[in-house]
Amino acid sequence: MEEIKEECGVFGIWSPDKRALPYTVAVGLTALQHRGQEAAGMAINEDRNIRYHKAPGLVSEVFPSPQLEALGCGQIAVGHVRYATTGGGSALNAQPMVVRHVKGQLALCHNGNLTNSVELRRELELKGCIFQTTSDTEVISYIITQKRLLNPSIETALEAAMKEIKGAYSLVLTSPTKLMACRDPLGMRPLVMGRTPDGCVVFASESCALDAVGAVPERDLKPGEIVVCDTGGVRSIETYCDKTKPKLCVFEYIYFSRPDSVIEGVCVHDARTRAGHFLAKNHPADADIVIGVPDSGLDAALGYAEESGIPYGIGLIKNKYIGRTFIAPDQNLRENLVRLKMGAVPSTIKGKRVVLVDDSIVRGTTSERIVRMIRDAGAKEVHMRISSPPFLNPCYYGTDVDSRENLIAVHHSNDEICKMIGADSLGFLSVEDARKLAGSDPDHFCAACFDGKYPV
Amino acid sequence: MEEIKEECGVFGIWSPDKRALPYTVAVGLTALQHRGQEAAGMAINEDRNIRYHKAPGLVSEVFPSPQLEALGCGQIAVGHVRYATTGGGSALNAQPMVVRHVKGQLALCHNGNLTNSVELRRELELKGCIFQTTSDTEVISYIITQKRLLNPSIETALEAAMKEIKGAYSLVLTSPTKLMACRDPLGMRPLVMGRTPDGCVVFASESCALDAVGAVPERDLKPGEIVVCDTGGVRSIETYCDKTKPKLCVFEYIYFSRPDSVIEGVCVHDARTRAGHFLAKNHPADADIVIGVPDSGLDAALGYAEESGIPYGIGLIKNKYIGRTFIAPDQNLRENLVRLKMGAVPSTIKGKRVVLVDDSIVRGTTSERIVRMIRDAGAKEVHMRISSPPFLNPCYYGTDVDSRENLIAVHHSNDEICKMIGADSLGFLSVEDARKLAGSDPDHFCAACFDGKYPV
Amino acid sequence: MEEIKEECGVFGIWSPDKRALPYTVAVGLTALQHRGQEAAGMAINEDRNIRYHKAPGLVSEVFPSPQLEALGCGQIAVGHVRYATTGGGSALNAQPMVVRHVKGQLALCHNGNLTNSVELRRELELKGCIFQTTSDTEVISYIITQKRLLNPSIETALEAAMKEIKGAYSLVLTSPTKLMACRDPLGMRPLVMGRTPDGCVVFASESCALDAVGAVPERDLKPGEIVVCDTGGVRSIETYCDKTKPKLCVFEYIYFSRPDSVIEGVCVHDARTRAGHFLAKNHPADADIVIGVPDSGLDAALGYAEESGIPYGIGLIKNKYIGRTFIAPDQNLRENLVRLKMGAVPSTIKGKRVVLVDDSIVRGTTSERIVRMIRDAGAKEVHMRISSPPFLNPCYYGTDVDSRENLIAVHHSNDEICKMIGADSLGFLSVEDARKLAGSDPDHFCAACFDGKYPV
Amino acid sequence: MEEIKEECGVFGIWSPDKRALPYTVAVGLTALQHRGQEAAGMAINEDRNIRYHKAPGLVSEVFPSPQLEALGCGQIAVGHVRYATTGGGSALNAQPMVVRHVKGQLALCHNGNLTNSVELRRELELKGCIFQTTSDTEVISYIITQKRLLNPSIETALEAAMKEIKGAYSLVLTSPTKLMACRDPLGMRPLVMGRTPDGCVVFASESCALDAVGAVPERDLKPGEIVVCDTGGVRSIETYCDKTKPKLCVFEYIYFSRPDSVIEGVCVHDARTRAGHFLAKNHPADADIVIGVPDSGLDAALGYAEESGIPYGIGLIKNKYIGRTFIAPDQNLRENLVRLKMGAVPSTIKGKRVVLVDDSIVRGTTSERIVRMIRDAGAKEVHMRISSPPFLNPCYYGTDVDSRENLIAVHHSNDEICKMIGADSLGFLSVEDARKLAGSDPDHFCAACFDGKYPV
Repeated sequence: MEEIKEECGVFGIWSPDKRALPYTVAVGLTALQHRGQEAAGMAINEDRNIRYHKAPGLVSEVFPSPQLEALGCGQIAVGHVRYATTGGGSALNAQPMVVRHVKGQLALCHNGNLTNSVELRRELELKGCIFQTTSDTEVISYIITQKRLLNPSIETALEAAMKEIKGAYSLVLTSPTKLMACRDPLGMRPLVMGRTPDGCVVFASESCALDAVGAVPERDLKPGEIVVCDTGGVRSIETYCDKTKPKLCVFEYIYFSRPDSVIEGVCVHDARTRAGHFLAKNHPADADIVIGVPDSGLDAALGYAEESGIPYGIGLIKNKYIGRTFIAPDQNLRENLVRLKMGAVPSTIKGKRVVLVDDSIVRGTTSERIVRMIRDAGAKEVHMRISSPPFLNPCYYGTDVDSRENLIAVHHSNDEICKMIGADSLGFLSVEDARKLAGSDPDHFCAACFDGKYPV
Repeated sequence: MEEIKEECGVFGIWSPDKRALPYTVAVGLTALQHRGQEAAGMAINEDRNIRYHKAPGLVSEVFPSPQLEALGCGQIAVGHVRYATTGGGSALNAQPMVVRHVKGQLALCHNGNLTNSVELRRELELKGCIFQTTSDTEVISYIITQKRLLNPSIETALEAAMKEIKGAYSLVLTSPTKLMACRDPLGMRPLVMGRTPDGCVVFASESCALDAVGAVPERDLKPGEIVVCDTGGVRSIETYCDKTKPKLCVFEYIYFSRPDSVIEGVCVHDARTRAGHFLAKNHPADADIVIGVPDSGLDAALGYAEESGIPYGIGLIKNKYIGRTFIAPDQNLRENLVRLKMGAVPSTIKGKRVVLVDDSIVRGTTSERIVRMIRDAGAKEVHMRISSPPFLNPCYYGTDVDSRENLIAVHHSNDEICKMIGADSLGFLSVEDARKLAGSDPDHFCAACFDGKYPV
Repeated sequence: MEEIKEECGVFGIWSPDKRALPYTVAVGLTALQHRGQEAAGMAINEDRNIRYHKAPGLVSEVFPSPQLEALGCGQIAVGHVRYATTGGGSALNAQPMVVRHVKGQLALCHNGNLTNSVELRRELELKGCIFQTTSDTEVISYIITQKRLLNPSIETALEAAMKEIKGAYSLVLTSPTKLMACRDPLGMRPLVMGRTPDGCVVFASESCALDAVGAVPERDLKPGEIVVCDTGGVRSIETYCDKTKPKLCVFEYIYFSRPDSVIEGVCVHDARTRAGHFLAKNHPADADIVIGVPDSGLDAALGYAEESGIPYGIGLIKNKYIGRTFIAPDQNLRENLVRLKMGAVPSTIKGKRVVLVDDSIVRGTTSERIVRMIRDAGAKEVHMRISSPPFLNPCYYGTDVDSRENLIAVHHSNDEICKMIGADSLGFLSVEDARKLAGSDPDHFCAACFDGKYPV
Repeated sequence: MEEIKEECGVFGIWSPDKRALPYTVAVGLTALQHRGQEAAGMAINEDRNIRYHKAPGLVSEVFPSPQLEALGCGQIAVGHVRYATTGGGSALNAQPMVVRHVKGQLALCHNGNLTNSVELRRELELKGCIFQTTSDTEVISYIITQKRLLNPSIETALEAAMKEIKGAYSLVLTSPTKLMACRDPLGMRPLVMGRTPDGCVVFASESCALDAVGAVPERDLKPGEIVVCDTGGVRSIETYCDKTKPKLCVFEYIYFSRPDSVIEGVCVHDARTRAGHFLAKNHPADADIVIGVPDSGLDAALGYAEESGIPYGIGLIKNKYIGRTFIAPDQNLRENLVRLKMGAVPSTIKGKRVVLVDDSIVRGTTSERIVRMIRDAGAKEVHMRISSPPFLNPCYYGTDVDSRENLIAVHHSNDEICKMIGADSLGFLSVEDARKLAGSDPDHFCAACFDGKYPV
């Protein structure tokens, strides 16, 4: 089934004393697992010495207890979950990237996508640099390293590097003595900071990871901000802050983040519920029940129900045990995979006019199968509501939506799509409403995949 | 974390022609995976020849595509998911049990627990039988085999065997030429039958597995019924039907089954919603929001909201990626595992008086941690409602609740438990209401774990 | 490449105190690994309680340290290495077979092959017995169990069972309190007994396993003898001894056993050297150097050199790292696999007339490739000498030579074979000489695969 | 048990057409497996595009058929086997190292050890280079890359790089269009070139790998020579040839290489046999039999027998199935591991005065255990002869002998060692004789580990 792919989740922790940080990182990364399931890794800094392990697989597969035990104790640790690129050497493309340069070791975790990495790579190659991976992270490592030669400290080197690299990046890195985190000047990817009751400083892509490790979220990093933690305390470098207009990826609210995460002061669940409200206002339906496609359609469905007054129902049950399943040999079985992924609750649906809320339509095939399943369960009508606008443009900042030729909305009108998926009516969230999900300045967001207005 | 363990899920399919049944069985078993995650297995009957594979692990782990491919095509197949007993030889204890006896091969899948297996085993041993496993299934295989020597057909042998074996059992088995299914005379474990549009007959523990393979549920097997499928068609043997009063395990509605399954005409989701209605009537609360503990508390929470008029909210988000996770070395991290399993949605909870609905309390430790998490997220009050009665007695029919000394309700009053878990109020479903969940005759159910009235 | 397959190696140990026997068994089985590489297993008896583990793979794969640790300590242990039959359920066919019968548990290891297992299996099935494997060991377990019902002790049951089972068998088994070993009345398979300096009694298929665990070989079991070890000491039951003429499989000397093992008083290395002497006498060659095909042709090559006076040379080097290698896609590469398995030493061979000694010819393809390799390395002449007679008949006692239609000697004369493998001359050991390898009564051996005189 | 570790084996092939080279490389690497068992890897160049796979493990483990299949076809391929350094990131330290630089991709395999890698690394770091591994190979990749920026072709870049790097190196590498091989100016590590009948050019560390893939060895690369293969043919660059006196590592003959390999015109088997001749002349013994410790003591034992006239015997049998075995928990069992690794042939040894030939003594513990085993098998006297001189100095060129404090010869005289290992007499090869093993100029070799005369 088609799906939108997020690139990464990052996690970092600084502890006032040496302790079994790998367990904490494993908990944090597991809370971020929804952001990337192809590879996981972590690096632990014990007395300026960095050990690491990374491999393809889920956090629980890459880090069974003996592996965590083997990584030992330390004062600083960083971790990463990612969608690996396909093809050879995927173990090498996993993060953190751990490099040794003239001033010691560096372990780097990156969420996002550079827009000038081809140019930077070319420049570096012309200086005699070699690349062992195809990831942007290796480019960033080089830039920081080269800046470090001309700068008195790793934080000023990072500051200088940020002048060179363009695009979306939330970074967490450890030098021999410091944990650092930074967010690109447009603030396209989230990064939040918190503290544990016993004095650890924690960074993570989402607040749900802070909650999971028992840290209290303190604040989001500002777009363009660098935060440095060491035995001297926590310091902020704000050289690039307020120099540009922030452009948070709106898809963080719509799709990527977990509903219990709070990004820039707004709970993801609330943003999604609000999407439901907008949908109910703009695309009302004469119906008996509102149901959401689990998991990310549930919040908007509840919002639709609240706003419309139509009862909220539990109509689709997700199978929790779908992993990396077999590829069925015959088309018939393959078509049934949606039925394996979820089941319809007949008592909720039978004889009802159903509002069905999902988070997105990419190719349309999945929607078509879900609508059919709802009808097979006895629905009289199916009114499809999508809590995001139609996808029309590629993303250059790290979101791997499908290739343009596969996007149904590129080639078809709303009515055509409605017909193709077999619904009685279809309504998308408008781009304007998408920009208002967080309740703040509509211009605060990047919604280029919907409206083509690229910020860089 | 403490948990209730179900013993098994069974699946069987008869096809009018030879086809790639292993894929269909894998789909069916994955839909039943919630009934047992420790081992999986299937046997495929191709032209009277039975091949099989079974191993510890999830269906997706035990049956990757090449394994399914290797099992080839056939006309009959049976499959099983189970909770393996601990210790050596777990691969042997997995099902189906495939044996060769004087009349050919037999592959047998069993859900339930015999109450007279010790006696039967002893009698068999005195005849010179040897046992290679510790499972009841091996006992059943022997009994059927020995009856087969004295009976003209496998179905009459099965009929004769059912006279000997006591307790809970839903069986699906294949002889060289027939697929058979039967349910114990008390009907303690569910078993449903359906048909695919192209003529296959399918049996499964729950209707969600029929839905998953594209079969239309036809009817539940009657308590005591044997159904036989072969090229001659489908026949029913009802010798033991209506001889006893049915005693379906009430926990099938409360906990084991998937909400989208329909058991004996009642949708599990409906039964759970009804539990919420009863709770709202008998244990009202002055509150702002009703939230369920995912996944099995959600339906009852919605019912509570419906009946009470208090809004339903999404307050807890389950982490989908918790697998067989590491064991954290320190108590502090271990305590946080509930926070790893789910996160609280602050915007739903903050400043609210919360009704929290869960499906059961076993030891109480998990409830205490969830209540604390809800309070930490800012709840003003937490009113705990449990959609089942307190556990007081062991089950002899295949449900592995905790040992009696660990059951909090055995040792403490309602008020004590409320205090121990840190809630502002606590209400359990009454046993009378539990018996009314399916809307049918209250006496139709076994609720011995709650009220100690054992049916056998 | 074609190969002769031995069926099994067995090992058993009784200790006067509880100790970490799994490590000792692992050492013993590794020393017997040449007798079977497809599966390994062991059972440990701690205070009448039997734990076990068995799986496909080499001893080192099936029993890594944590697995040995998990098996704990005990007073008795038995172990087994085997060639698994192909197809499903190979884990089940591995040994020891551990069964529970009316008098307790039994763990049984078997080397050999019954000739009446089909009849016994049929009789048992008619009594209502079920079979979960296709192995003779399950038949033996049943027979012993059924005899145990009528006999006062396990040893008298074993004695009674030996009346029923026909064919080749060396057994090692543990009951709750006793370690027992027995050898079939024809003594077709070897079984040796020894003691460690600290009082353990050890049984093994070959003396090399006793050496490996630090036990001093004491004596071979007599054909037909049962030895029982328990806290009362070691006792022998000789009811079946001297009732038949022993028929040790001559292939134990020629191929199966390790050269450092001593079987019935004769060192295997000596028997093989003697084969070389016979070959030199009956098939002399005018040559410059004698080389053996490693590993099992080396001893006979040395014998040929001694008898003929032609210098012994090291002419072929075996690659130690050939494991379960890939299957090369093209014929050309596949043909080269002999070159991967071993390399020719040019300085030994170049310009020489070479006597090449190998242990057997089955299909002839391997011999042809080795001869070609020797010629490619510069040999002027290649005189092939085979330290066994030509294979002409199937074995019913557990040796898996190729199927008859593939045996080159069935279809071709000595001269034809010589031409087919490209040698300048070819000489096989005569059957008469084969029977004289151990220096004892020529009639003491079974050589049915060569001469068709089946002992049973 | 203590052991000497070789660093690597390299393999490269150029084909006139596109073909399934991964299978050929796997065969070649398996033939070189004795040079390194910790990791294996290969890179295949298809139409200027380089794919690769490398991982810890034996060739057969890292490259099962599906992996070879996945690597596809190509015109050039290089491969490597190595001893991985311990600790994290071993997958990264495996070779080939595949990098992308300004002119395209490069895949590099290296056998040897640089003596100036610390300085080179420091210089590179000062230019802003980052290192992801701790291997010399990454340093070499950088140097070649940086030279490539200033040179018109990859071969002139390699030539320029050879001016910078010091120490022992045999390299095989592929650029987008060329296969190249080179050997350091001292020729410390071997590298041989051959051709297959169908026009492929093959390079390998040892000629046994050429034999294995059906290539005919043509010549050794000259010390300092670069050979370039592309569609234009094979060219040699000899800028550094004859500029220094060659210093081949003498241990290649004594220990590392396979007896069937021919290095610089001398067969390894012959060199070892000659070591036996020297030992027999300088350390005669009044004895009945000469036996070698398998595998690398066998050739010298045969030489000793030839020279002395004492019969050669097969006295120790190696267990072929010792893999990565368990660590026995008790000292007693651990001591027995030598008995697991090999068994004594009693009929060869009993009552005899034995000359026992081994290739080296490192710590002495293994020798002591073997001598004891020979005595336990009944030897009257044991005269130990070692086919190499005593180790006294560390190696800086890639041989990982034990650390100096563990070397028995550093702390003890010949007589003391003889007593410690329990032998009746002990004789080492003299350094002078070691230098004469290949029959050529004694000064042609590096024997620094014995005599401390380091060539660089």
